[in-house]
Amino acid sequence: MTAVMPVGVEAAHDQVSPSIAAAVQRLSPDVRTVAAYHLGLPDRRTGSAGSARAAGKALRPALVLLSARAAGAQAESAVPAAVAVELVHNFSLLHDDIMDGDTERRHQPAAWTVYGVGAAILAGDALLALAQELLLEDQGPQGVWAARCLSAAVQRLIAGQGADLAFERRSDVTLSECMDMAGDKTAALMACACSIGAIYVGARAEIAMSLASFGAQMGLAFQITDDLLGIWGAPEVTGKPVRSDLRAKKKSLPVVAALTSGTDAGRALGELLFSPDPLTEEQLLRAADLVEAAGGRSWAEREADRAMAAALGHLTETAMPDEVRAEFTGIAEFITARQW
Amino acid sequence: MTAVMPVGVEAAHDQVSPSIAAAVQRLSPDVRTVAAYHLGLPDRRTGSAGSARAAGKALRPALVLLSARAAGAQAESAVPAAVAVELVHNFSLLHDDIMDGDTERRHQPAAWTVYGVGAAILAGDALLALAQELLLEDQGPQGVWAARCLSAAVQRLIAGQGADLAFERRSDVTLSECMDMAGDKTAALMACACSIGAIYVGARAEIAMSLASFGAQMGLAFQITDDLLGIWGAPEVTGKPVRSDLRAKKKSLPVVAALTSGTDAGRALGELLFSPDPLTEEQLLRAADLVEAAGGRSWAEREADRAMAAALGHLTETAMPDEVRAEFTGIAEFITARQW
Repeated sequence: MTAVMPVGVEAAHDQVSPSIAAAVQRLSPDVRTVAAYHLGLPDRRTGSAGSARAAGKALRPALVLLSARAAGAQAESAVPAAVAVELVHNFSLLHDDIMDGDTERRHQPAAWTVYGVGAAILAGDALLALAQELLLEDQGPQGVWAARCLSAAVQRLIAGQGADLAFERRSDVTLSECMDMAGDKTAALMACACSIGAIYVGARAEIAMSLASFGAQMGLAFQITDDLLGIWGAPEVTGKPVRSDLRAKKKSLPVVAALTSGTDAGRALGELLFSPDPLTEEQLLRAADLVEAAGGRSWAEREADRAMAAALGHLTETAMPDEVRAEFTGIAEFITARQW
Repeated sequence: MTAVMPVGVEAAHDQVSPSIAAAVQRLSPDVRTVAAYHLGLPDRRTGSAGSARAAGKALRPALVLLSARAAGAQAESAVPAAVAVELVHNFSLLHDDIMDGDTERRHQPAAWTVYGVGAAILAGDALLALAQELLLEDQGPQGVWAARCLSAAVQRLIAGQGADLAFERRSDVTLSECMDMAGDKTAALMACACSIGAIYVGARAEIAMSLASFGAQMGLAFQITDDLLGIWGAPEVTGKPVRSDLRAKKKSLPVVAALTSGTDAGRALGELLFSPDPLTEEQLLRAADLVEAAGGRSWAEREADRAMAAALGHLTETAMPDEVRAEFTGIAEFITARQW
């Protein structure tokens, strides 16, 4: 199955891009160059034209604008919130790439490999501070609520990344710890993206809370899908080498489900992954088969279905215009589409 | 001359420490351990008792509490703002130590050398987000103004550090660029510390602005003093090896003043500092003499005096209780005391 990008995402991209570019213009020249490179924006100083592919898909901004529409407001009124969420997402990408040693991001060399670790840390810091600034300008109490919502998501993002780093050094990670980590690292910002637009336009708390629950479950389904792609996804879909997560011996959800399955296949997988040596291509194939034999793949597929059903349940029970619900559903289906 | 710590600084330390500890308790366990280590706080998880020396001097919290008192409020009412400024200061120390490759901080190994670069980046991120959270809780519009004031200072901090990193790769740094960098990197957070307490308790804008001007000039005097100590300070005062800034070939203010002096001594200094080899002890001594011969030392001492006089001028023209003004003056004199 090939997933087709929902039209709303393209539209959101066009709607927020000028504001993202304007926000980045506020940064000091040295920091701005790095941020612009990472975001695929043109930069007068370096003469770079920017890269549309490096700009990313604007999924989170699209969710923010939808959440404002769900609360009965115009999409435009939530643009600052959409920009803030996208800046926070990119703050975390800039810093995570350093921590994880990832050298490529959105089809170009990661910022830290081009400008150095120090400059990439600073650019991430600047985007985080900028996101909060945008929310606190020109808006009354809702701006503050939105800023607090975003801050809470940032703390969970950090907690999730901290747990992920700690997992690398452990061989006894439980499935429940791993689910918590995914909830923090991925789902929290999705929950924020799906509700902050409503908060920013002054929606009632119940609407914001149902939208956040929708976003949290969708975020979980998204992370599980991503973990499955990290083992069985084709390089042309993931933009990474085949079985990249196994290669990196990542404790992703299907892997931990297999490791903790109590099966012979799970134990054999552990022997492969906990050996200090890098895995050969043959061992990678065998590891993928062992995840499947230990039930890790079917557990993850079931869990993704469960999370997606829960997400859509929250969506159904929230009052909103039908076309907004349809667009939310379209994005949810797009980001959890099975392409393996 | 030996500088004696003003009593207000000790008192501020006692007043804000419990709130700093409580704020750090909110962080997730993995991140909290690193933050607690850096801040010298006890950590139940690692069983560490913390280190009073690593906790730092609470200079900035003392300034924040004074600024609230300058506006006629109780010091206690500005504790969240004092904590927020101290957290931002420590966010920048955590990240700067990574970027600058500094392996020691406040008489203990820097956090990144103990917990890794990734964990130290995350701990810094968490402190930055936490600082904003504290300001946006429980307080009306003043909390938002304080948060915006802090955010603006953070952006200047980042701009200054970005410029500092860029200077390392350049041999044509001007004195005016170098002063701007010091204004961003050091003076902006001092200006914020001296005014945010007043802002947080709802003082009139004029008071906050004069206090910020005082803080900015004091911050500049502080940075110049620090740069002079980096060349001529005794190790027992600076906690670093003698002539550490020359050793690191840092483009500090006295050095740039010498390099751009148009003198023979300035040119000879350039030949020493722009050579790719590390300097011998003999060359370090000669470099220090060349800074002096080129007028870099006297320029810096004059400039520190000028900034300090400007700071005290702003202090005099701001209406505040006499004892508060005396305490501000005491801190300003303490942090710019000549110990070389």
